[in-house]
Amino acid sequence: MDTVGTASIHFSAVAGRSSLADIARLAGVSLATASRAMSNSYGVAPATRARVLRIAEELDYVVSPEASRLARGAVGRVALVVPHVDRWFFGAVIGGLEAELSDAGLDVLLYHVGDADDRRDFFHRLPARRKVDAVVVVAFEVADAERERLERMGVLVVAAGGQDEVYPGVRIDDREAGRRAVDHLLFLGHRRIGMISAVDPDQPVAARPHGRDQAYHDALRDAGLPIDDELVVTIEWSGVAAADAMAALLSLRSPPTAVYCHSDELALGAIRTIRRAGLRVPEDLSVIGVDDHPLAELTDLTTVAQPARDQGVRAAHLLLARLRGQGSPQHVVLPTRLVIRRSTAPPREV
Amino acid sequence: MDTVGTASIHFSAVAGRSSLADIARLAGVSLATASRAMSNSYGVAPATRARVLRIAEELDYVVSPEASRLARGAVGRVALVVPHVDRWFFGAVIGGLEAELSDAGLDVLLYHVGDADDRRDFFHRLPARRKVDAVVVVAFEVADAERERLERMGVLVVAAGGQDEVYPGVRIDDREAGRRAVDHLLFLGHRRIGMISAVDPDQPVAARPHGRDQAYHDALRDAGLPIDDELVVTIEWSGVAAADAMAALLSLRSPPTAVYCHSDELALGAIRTIRRAGLRVPEDLSVIGVDDHPLAELTDLTTVAQPARDQGVRAAHLLLARLRGQGSPQHVVLPTRLVIRRSTAPPREV
Repeated sequence: MDTVGTASIHFSAVAGRSSLADIARLAGVSLATASRAMSNSYGVAPATRARVLRIAEELDYVVSPEASRLARGAVGRVALVVPHVDRWFFGAVIGGLEAELSDAGLDVLLYHVGDADDRRDFFHRLPARRKVDAVVVVAFEVADAERERLERMGVLVVAAGGQDEVYPGVRIDDREAGRRAVDHLLFLGHRRIGMISAVDPDQPVAARPHGRDQAYHDALRDAGLPIDDELVVTIEWSGVAAADAMAALLSLRSPPTAVYCHSDELALGAIRTIRRAGLRVPEDLSVIGVDDHPLAELTDLTTVAQPARDQGVRAAHLLLARLRGQGSPQHVVLPTRLVIRRSTAPPREV
Repeated sequence: MDTVGTASIHFSAVAGRSSLADIARLAGVSLATASRAMSNSYGVAPATRARVLRIAEELDYVVSPEASRLARGAVGRVALVVPHVDRWFFGAVIGGLEAELSDAGLDVLLYHVGDADDRRDFFHRLPARRKVDAVVVVAFEVADAERERLERMGVLVVAAGGQDEVYPGVRIDDREAGRRAVDHLLFLGHRRIGMISAVDPDQPVAARPHGRDQAYHDALRDAGLPIDDELVVTIEWSGVAAADAMAALLSLRSPPTAVYCHSDELALGAIRTIRRAGLRVPEDLSVIGVDDHPLAELTDLTTVAQPARDQGVRAAHLLLARLRGQGSPQHVVLPTRLVIRRSTAPPREV
């Protein structure tokens, strides 16, 4: 590289006069390619982009984000709307989304909508400010009024995780996941199976029956077993609440021999109570979860695994295909699988 | 409200002619207040902002983000740079930051810098594009070359979590946390204490001894006990790796009677191995962690709690104070505390 030339350009850059044309010339690329490399658009070879960026850096060149944006006809940002950030499932989905979107040169805006106020605020504000090219709703159902606001905004909406049926998206089949769990308990010989079922009180769309609930009813019905309402406890998504729910099940005259929990965190709460009662898992009581949380492996929990990060990755692919005007499926349903560890076994002989 | 007036303005809005002045007039506020409310700046009463936003909504008024930004002399965005998004601690810190920053009207950009490539890419790209008002580094140490790039960018940098000493920030005292853990084991009567120590191989700044390591050495020295290198196993931050590390400790001729783990996840991995060996926690072996991960409560793990979400909240306060030109401390160190559960006990009589 002509260091003398660079140095003199550098001087002019300090004086505020370096331009994209200088960079293109020094990098030996067209102005269009230099622009694409700086704005991180698609279609520039990594080596070329690296060279352009290195030269831009030497020139202390500062891109105007607005200018770069105008060149692409898009703001280059995607909003992730999430009801939780400190729970494993949501973090893993966000991680998958962020990796793919940032690789594609998009910036990721994070909006946590933890409760009804946050949600109202978010949906209220976003349409008034056209600052994203797309919105990803991470594992929650969008209410009708919110849907209307998103439509008014006129941006692409994609769902990652959750059971939204309206937007294109990626998810698992909760009913299938639940069936795998309950059918496994039935296969082991359990006939008195409890369920610790979770709902999210902050989510306005709670009326529709949850697939993981339906699975329990379907499986027992198919096995010719009655539904005993005593054996179902519905709580919030909280391991501590699940510990209490398990105590309620153990307070029955005839407790279950196995418990199906809607998540691994709930299952761990249930196991704590079982152990505190002086009982052993799985010898005295079997417990199964859903998720395959990283700590399920460490706690030897039998569970139905769902690919969390992959739901984010695949949702990002779907989003990028649509932003590029390419065809993409409306719904992608990723498979779940039973992971057998040490929290389930046949029921004790009585 | 004068609905006739609103309706006629609404018509003109559809025709593209509604202005901020229309909104200000209908809301009965000054143009400056209307502008601040729309751009979500500080100093507008919530009720006033709600009124302005409602009217803007009725008018289908669309703010130009650039115009609003220019009015504030800032882009209204903060970048969170995080080495992990799917681990509890990082998710909790991000949650605290997001809550406070979005309440203050700032948008949060999320950058995951998982490995050396991501980091290079992030630090390479960011300075060339002036798109944030501040950068928050979440629980990692910034290398010298990266520091230089941040400085060139000329934005405020704040550290949330981690042990960075250069930037203003909020953290715990890792050495204090470790002392609480090891001193508790010593108090219980343990004399042969193992340590499962973790390092992050993707973080370039690994040379400086970690406070949680130092604490172990300090505590044993103060107790007049020798350091036995056999009793220290250094691994990555992974529960599965900790399970293997625990197996290594159990392969010694004289294993420890208690193990201090750098995190709760490591502690759970260690406990899995102890149980698989047919030993009981805490009767045969005590295990203590650091964090107070939500699942520590469910698994009855004794640990040293750190306030994760609060490190994010307080870092956001520090950042906002500095953006507003108010004074703020350089470093905030939040307290840790011992949480005694059921994974620690005095050593067995031998």
